[in-house]
Amino acid sequence: MEQQEIAIKTWLADNHSRGVKLLQRLVQERSVRGEESKAQAIIIEKLRRLGLSLDIWEIGSPELLNHPDFSCDRKNFYGNPNVVGVWKGTGVGRSIILNGHIDVVPEGDLNEWEHDPYSGVIIDGCLYGRGSTDMKGGTVSLLLAIEAIKESGIKLKGDVIFQSVIEEESGGAGSLAAVLRGYHGDGAIIPEPSGMKIFPKQQGSMWFRITVKGKSAHGGTRYEGVSAIEKMNVVINELQQLEKARNQGIKDPLYENIPIPIPINIGKIQSGEWPSSVPDLADIEGRMGVAPNETLTKARAEMEECLRALEKKDKWFQQHPVKIEWFGGTWLPGNLEEGHELIQFLTQAYQKVRGNFPVIEASPWGTDGGILSNIGHTPVVVFGPGTTEVAHDCNEYIVLDHVFEAAEMIALTILNWCGVSDS
Amino acid sequence: MEQQEIAIKTWLADNHSRGVKLLQRLVQERSVRGEESKAQAIIIEKLRRLGLSLDIWEIGSPELLNHPDFSCDRKNFYGNPNVVGVWKGTGVGRSIILNGHIDVVPEGDLNEWEHDPYSGVIIDGCLYGRGSTDMKGGTVSLLLAIEAIKESGIKLKGDVIFQSVIEEESGGAGSLAAVLRGYHGDGAIIPEPSGMKIFPKQQGSMWFRITVKGKSAHGGTRYEGVSAIEKMNVVINELQQLEKARNQGIKDPLYENIPIPIPINIGKIQSGEWPSSVPDLADIEGRMGVAPNETLTKARAEMEECLRALEKKDKWFQQHPVKIEWFGGTWLPGNLEEGHELIQFLTQAYQKVRGNFPVIEASPWGTDGGILSNIGHTPVVVFGPGTTEVAHDCNEYIVLDHVFEAAEMIALTILNWCGVSDS
Repeated sequence: MEQQEIAIKTWLADNHSRGVKLLQRLVQERSVRGEESKAQAIIIEKLRRLGLSLDIWEIGSPELLNHPDFSCDRKNFYGNPNVVGVWKGTGVGRSIILNGHIDVVPEGDLNEWEHDPYSGVIIDGCLYGRGSTDMKGGTVSLLLAIEAIKESGIKLKGDVIFQSVIEEESGGAGSLAAVLRGYHGDGAIIPEPSGMKIFPKQQGSMWFRITVKGKSAHGGTRYEGVSAIEKMNVVINELQQLEKARNQGIKDPLYENIPIPIPINIGKIQSGEWPSSVPDLADIEGRMGVAPNETLTKARAEMEECLRALEKKDKWFQQHPVKIEWFGGTWLPGNLEEGHELIQFLTQAYQKVRGNFPVIEASPWGTDGGILSNIGHTPVVVFGPGTTEVAHDCNEYIVLDHVFEAAEMIALTILNWCGVSDS
Repeated sequence: MEQQEIAIKTWLADNHSRGVKLLQRLVQERSVRGEESKAQAIIIEKLRRLGLSLDIWEIGSPELLNHPDFSCDRKNFYGNPNVVGVWKGTGVGRSIILNGHIDVVPEGDLNEWEHDPYSGVIIDGCLYGRGSTDMKGGTVSLLLAIEAIKESGIKLKGDVIFQSVIEEESGGAGSLAAVLRGYHGDGAIIPEPSGMKIFPKQQGSMWFRITVKGKSAHGGTRYEGVSAIEKMNVVINELQQLEKARNQGIKDPLYENIPIPIPINIGKIQSGEWPSSVPDLADIEGRMGVAPNETLTKARAEMEECLRALEKKDKWFQQHPVKIEWFGGTWLPGNLEEGHELIQFLTQAYQKVRGNFPVIEASPWGTDGGILSNIGHTPVVVFGPGTTEVAHDCNEYIVLDHVFEAAEMIALTILNWCGVSDS
């Protein structure tokens, strides 16, 4: 094995600028929702050159649309395909899915960016741009791992199934489509921005919208109305109490260093139409974290119960109950059993490359891992070179060295997991 | 006097249906901003028949546009004039301005109206339609008062200056234009919907927009960001404290029954773009009430100081100061001195017509009275037949009896104020 490991390390070192160039090109394509095609085209071309069997399809089959875990408000997938490339093994090893998503979140306030969000500019060993960390950097680690193994002349026993999916940021419809198309594996690695930590468990999540009523009045006699903004703040306060209670219940040591294992995030609020009127309606949109060992149904019920309890505390809510909708994305939690061999192999690979022991933790966010594991019955580990801190933020970047380190660790894990063919 | 008072009462009773018809025709013209001409045409025709000297002009002179209290975003006044009709007195009495605005606010959600907003339909003694209460009903009271005096053969010593102005609802550019054209009076009555209360003082107001910064992060690790919504609530709390402090300082007995004499109304908030992100920006829009004896400048300074004080209490604001803008409409406060003769005469007239004592209060909103008094140096009282409760609302209406009662009270006040000529 040692010789093959050296070959991989050497190949990665020799092909540094090619890897960087690939990532740069991917970041430069603005693959926000509905505009994934150009970035996917780069992936397709790369997979074609690697000699993988390609499967390119537009998602949206009736089976997908009617699946109970399909969570997506997008109407049209035309022209923006899912991409899978399969490298068949010699047939007697374990298969592995390598899954990355190509969609990026919107760039937010452009004034906050020091460079164009799609510049791909490199400064001090970091590559900047929306999607660099979440998760085109991780996807490039996967592609480099495959290429390093191939170019080192290694043949694997098990299949490598590379997936570049759409719609992760909005609820995982792309990965669900891949599962329903028949892609399963004996294991899976998803290089979401874990900051080189190993995440056997992942926080699930789902979106909610709460509508709060008030009573309008002229601002000059605001006491004649009931401000929906004030009532909204009562609701937000209640959600903060619920968050506290839910997190106190989490004892898993993997969450030991995480301040709020399953946060309730208020992401968006809107109320009122006119400065001099008392607003009679307020909307809250947010994300509820779901524990690895919890179902979405149970978490939903807890929030709904909390909102109903408001009606006993406050007469206004008794007469004007708040409305809750679960809309948009849901991300199933991931819950890989303790001591799973995939974790062992990845830990060993990490130690070989970095010389120290990796942090093994629970992830603060859901990934498509929930779909691959809960629906596709594929054991999943999340491990990648980006960092949560800069994901979804302005001036998003990735440390290029981490992309290559992750590529090497993933390549070594694949060798162990799939097995190296002697022939 | 008594004979003249009886003549006026009789004339009003005899001409009920003509008065109603006039109001109905005015309500049926949709005189929203930019479309005031047809309603003004009815006023012009009425003034012509009454034999008043007419002054009809399109506002927008350089003097107006450059005036420090000009607050208007309208670009074009072409074809929608201000109208003034003057009835010259015999020359030795006090003059009076009778001011009404012809513009109405938009009708809002049409589905909420039981009848067409411009039907002018009469049901159980109430006339329905946008502008009926705010303030075409009041304008008709003025016209009926003038006509009743004239038709009773009474001649006045002082001038009566009737004004039908545009742009009150958007900040008073029409009345400001009338002041700048040289119209001043020894007193003025503005029959805004006071619900037959007498308002010697009026709350002024202005609009503000406050921008609050946060630090974005992924919702799953929300503890890594700073929620602009949470920081916005700190600001709102501070504004509530400021409102409390400002209102505690108000000892005027006219505000005795008003829960919050000069409210700070939060009318509109917006923050965040994505349910699973921590929002990094929040906008607050609202209306600040200004006390009758206060200047806009002083009120502005108090709010700005309050926001600056936040920087000492909270490091976040020290590093990320909130931004405040004063935008949109401003309405100057009105402040008639206690025991002014105009109030005395109106009170006596009220007692003669209704047999009881009127409510004398401070108004919860600004009117063009702020412009007439602060800039035109004309003492102003606000008193009219409509009601605040239905102004700007769907199914706006006015009690027709109140239109005639107000007309009679205003006529009697005019007799006293301007003086009746013996000749």
